Amino acid sequence: MIQRDADRLARASLTYLAEPADERLFALLTACGSAAEAVRAIQTGKLPSALVRTGSARAAAERSLEKWRVRLAELPETGDLEAFCRRGIRLVCPGDPEWPSRLDDLGPAAPYALWVRGSADLRFGCLRSVAVVGSRAATAYGSYVAAEISSSVAARGWTIVSGAAYGVDGAAHRGALGAGGTTIAVLACGVDQPYPAGHADLLDAIAEGGAVVSEWPPGRNATRLRFLVRNRVIAALSTATVVVEAAERSGAVNTARHARDLSRGLMAVPGPVTSQQSAGCHMIIRDWDGTLVTSAADVLEMVTPLGGEVSSGNIPAAALTSAEMSQSASGPPPLLSRDALDPESAAILDALPVRGGLGTTAVAAKAGLAPTTALTCLGELAAGGFAERCEAGWRIRRI
Amino acid sequence: MIQRDADRLARASLTYLAEPADERLFALLTACGSAAEAVRAIQTGKLPSALVRTGSARAAAERSLEKWRVRLAELPETGDLEAFCRRGIRLVCPGDPEWPSRLDDLGPAAPYALWVRGSADLRFGCLRSVAVVGSRAATAYGSYVAAEISSSVAARGWTIVSGAAYGVDGAAHRGALGAGGTTIAVLACGVDQPYPAGHADLLDAIAEGGAVVSEWPPGRNATRLRFLVRNRVIAALSTATVVVEAAERSGAVNTARHARDLSRGLMAVPGPVTSQQSAGCHMIIRDWDGTLVTSAADVLEMVTPLGGEVSSGNIPAAALTSAEMSQSASGPPPLLSRDALDPESAAILDALPVRGGLGTTAVAAKAGLAPTTALTCLGELAAGGFAERCEAGWRIRRI
Repeated sequence: MIQRDADRLARASLTYLAEPADERLFALLTACGSAAEAVRAIQTGKLPSALVRTGSARAAAERSLEKWRVRLAELPETGDLEAFCRRGIRLVCPGDPEWPSRLDDLGPAAPYALWVRGSADLRFGCLRSVAVVGSRAATAYGSYVAAEISSSVAARGWTIVSGAAYGVDGAAHRGALGAGGTTIAVLACGVDQPYPAGHADLLDAIAEGGAVVSEWPPGRNATRLRFLVRNRVIAALSTATVVVEAAERSGAVNTARHARDLSRGLMAVPGPVTSQQSAGCHMIIRDWDGTLVTSAADVLEMVTPLGGEVSSGNIPAAALTSAEMSQSASGPPPLLSRDALDPESAAILDALPVRGGLGTTAVAAKAGLAPTTALTCLGELAAGGFAERCEAGWRIRRI
Repeated sequence: MIQRDADRLARASLTYLAEPADERLFALLTACGSAAEAVRAIQTGKLPSALVRTGSARAAAERSLEKWRVRLAELPETGDLEAFCRRGIRLVCPGDPEWPSRLDDLGPAAPYALWVRGSADLRFGCLRSVAVVGSRAATAYGSYVAAEISSSVAARGWTIVSGAAYGVDGAAHRGALGAGGTTIAVLACGVDQPYPAGHADLLDAIAEGGAVVSEWPPGRNATRLRFLVRNRVIAALSTATVVVEAAERSGAVNTARHARDLSRGLMAVPGPVTSQQSAGCHMIIRDWDGTLVTSAADVLEMVTPLGGEVSSGNIPAAALTSAEMSQSASGPPPLLSRDALDPESAAILDALPVRGGLGTTAVAAKAGLAPTTALTCLGELAAGGFAERCEAGWRIRRI
C-alpha cells in the first residue's frame, strides 16, 4: 500500500472512530502529526505523551480513547475504499484536489474527511454556492419561496446546498434540479442511507448531477445531535446561507449561527409575523444583522461582490421563470484563470460553441474524451464561470 | 381685537391663502416678522423689498402673490374662530400651550397652524406617540397586525397617530380605540370633512377621546398632492413611525421617508415576499435601515429608550390581550415633573387611587371638577405617564 492510500484509509478510519468536531481527536491529530499515526495511537491504546501531561488532561484523554476504541471493530480495511468506489461512494480528504478549502475555516472543527456520492466535483461545486435551509414543517409559502429562489439562483450557475430534510430543504433541492442546476445535500447519516425515507428518490436525483455528502461513513444513522453537528458543514461549504422559514429555536437558525460565526453571508426571507415558522428569520434580520432578501435577485446581489450581475433591479423570484433568468443572465466573470484549467477541461472548453449549444455526448466527441469525463469537466467549467447550460445543451458563458 | 386674537386670525388666514409647506410663504413670513404682517402684504399686494430684490426672485414672488390673492375672498373674519369653536373646531398655533413643539423640526415646512377637532390635548397626546400607517388596499393580514400592534401599544399609554384612510390606517385607529387608548387622525382635508366617507363615524369616535387634525381649514377637500404634504405631519408629530403594509411606491413609504429624514424612529412589519403590499416594508428594512418589528413589544422596545419597559421578552402582539398588556405593564416614568402640571391636572392626580381604580365621574367629584374637565386632565396625565386606565377606571401609574 503506497503512503497516500494509507493516509486515505486512516482518514476514513477517523470518520468511523470519532464523531465529527471532536476537540480531543483534533488534539490527538495535532500531537501525532498524521491521521495514520492517530489511528495507530487509538489502536494500540497509547496516547502521545503531550496529551497526557497533567492528571486531569490524562483522565479526559483516556475517556475519549475508550470511546474511540469501542468502534475499532468497525474499521475499514485496505480495499474497502475501492469497494465503496464501485458503489459510487468516494472519500474526499483534506489536500485532495476535490477538497473544498473553505472547510478549513472551521479550524479544529473541520471534517476529518467527507464521504461523497454523486457526479459533481465537490470543490468546484462549492466555489459559487448558496445554502438554502429552513424548517421541516415549512408552510406552503416557505416551500414555494425556497423552490423559486433556489431555481433562479441555480439557473444563474450557483450551486444550492441544503440538508435534504422535508420542507424547505427538499423544496430548495427540487428547485435547483428543476432549473437544471447543481445541488449538494449534506447529510447527518451515511451517504448510502435513504434519509428521510421519503426523499430516497430525491437523493438519487441530487447525486446524479450534484453530490450527496456526509462526514459519517456509509451505514451510519442520523441522530438529533448529528443534525446540529452537520449544520456547520452546510454553512462552511457555502458562500452564503439563506434561511427561508425557521422557528426561533430550530436547526436552520443553528445553521445561520454557524454562517454568522464563519463570516459567511447571512440572509433571511421575511414572512408573516403571525407565523411561528418565520420568527427565526425575523430574529436573524433584527438581531443578527442578516440581510432581508425577497427574491433570487436579492440573493445574487449579495453573493456577487461587485453587484454587477443583476441588471434588472429587484426582480421578485416569482416574476421570472428559470429560463428567463438563465437567458437574461450575462453571468459573472470566471473565478479562475483559463490557464489554471487542467488539460481535459481546457479541451472541453475549446469544444464548446459560443452560440446555440451542444449536448454532452457531442462535446465529448469533439474534445476526444469519454462522456463521463466530459460531464465532470462541464460541471467544473460551469462552477468556474466558463460554461453554462442552455436549452440546446452547453455553451461558453459570455462574460 | 387684542393682539393675540389678531395673530391667531392671521395664522388661520394663512391656512386659507396658501398650501402648507410653501417655501415662498415661509420666506414672506420671515421677511414680514409676523403672520399679521404677512397677511397684510398679501392683502395689499405689496411684498417686502427683501423678497423682490432681484429680477427672477421678483417674478417668482409675484407669481406666488397672485396665487395667494386668488383666495382672499375666502378669508375668515373676526368672530369666525369663535364660531368654529362652537362647532368643536379650534385653531392651534405655534407658541400655544397645545402646540406640539416637535413640529418645529420641520423647519421651513412646519405648519402655519393646525385645525383640531377632539377632546385630547394635542401636545400631550403627541408626547408619547407612534404613527401606524400603511396601505389603503391592506390585506387581511395587514389589517390584523395593524389593529393588534396599535391596540397593545395604545394600551400602554402611547397615542396612535395615523391618516384615517381605509385599510391599515383605519385598523390602527380602531385598534387604539378598542383598547381605550388615545388616537390622532391627521387629515388632508378640513377636520369637518367626513373623508373617506365610510370613516365618518370612525372620525367622530377618534375626536371623542383623541383628536382629528389638519393643516387645511374647514371646508377644504382632500387632493392627491395634499395627502403627500400631509404625511410629513404624521411623521413629525410622532416619536416613531411603524409601516405595517405598503407597496414600494405608496403614501406610507412617503411617510416613512419623512420619518427617516426627521431622524424619528422608523420601523416596518415584514410580510410574505409574495405580497406587493409588503414590498415597501421590506425595502424600508433592507435599504433604509428601518427596524424590523413583529409585535407591540418590539415597537415599545424601540420607543422606550432604556428598554426597561418590556419585561417579558418578545411577546407577539397576538399572544397578549390589551387587558393583559395593561396589567403586566409597569410603564415608563413620567415625562414631565409633577410640578409642571396645571392646577386642575394636579387636583385630578391627587384624586386618583394607587390601587383598584375610579371611574371618571368619581374622580371628577373627588377633585371638585366637571367630568369633561376631568376627562381632559386624565388624558393628559395618561399621556404624561402619571395615570393609567385599568378595569375599574383610572389609577396612578406605578413607576
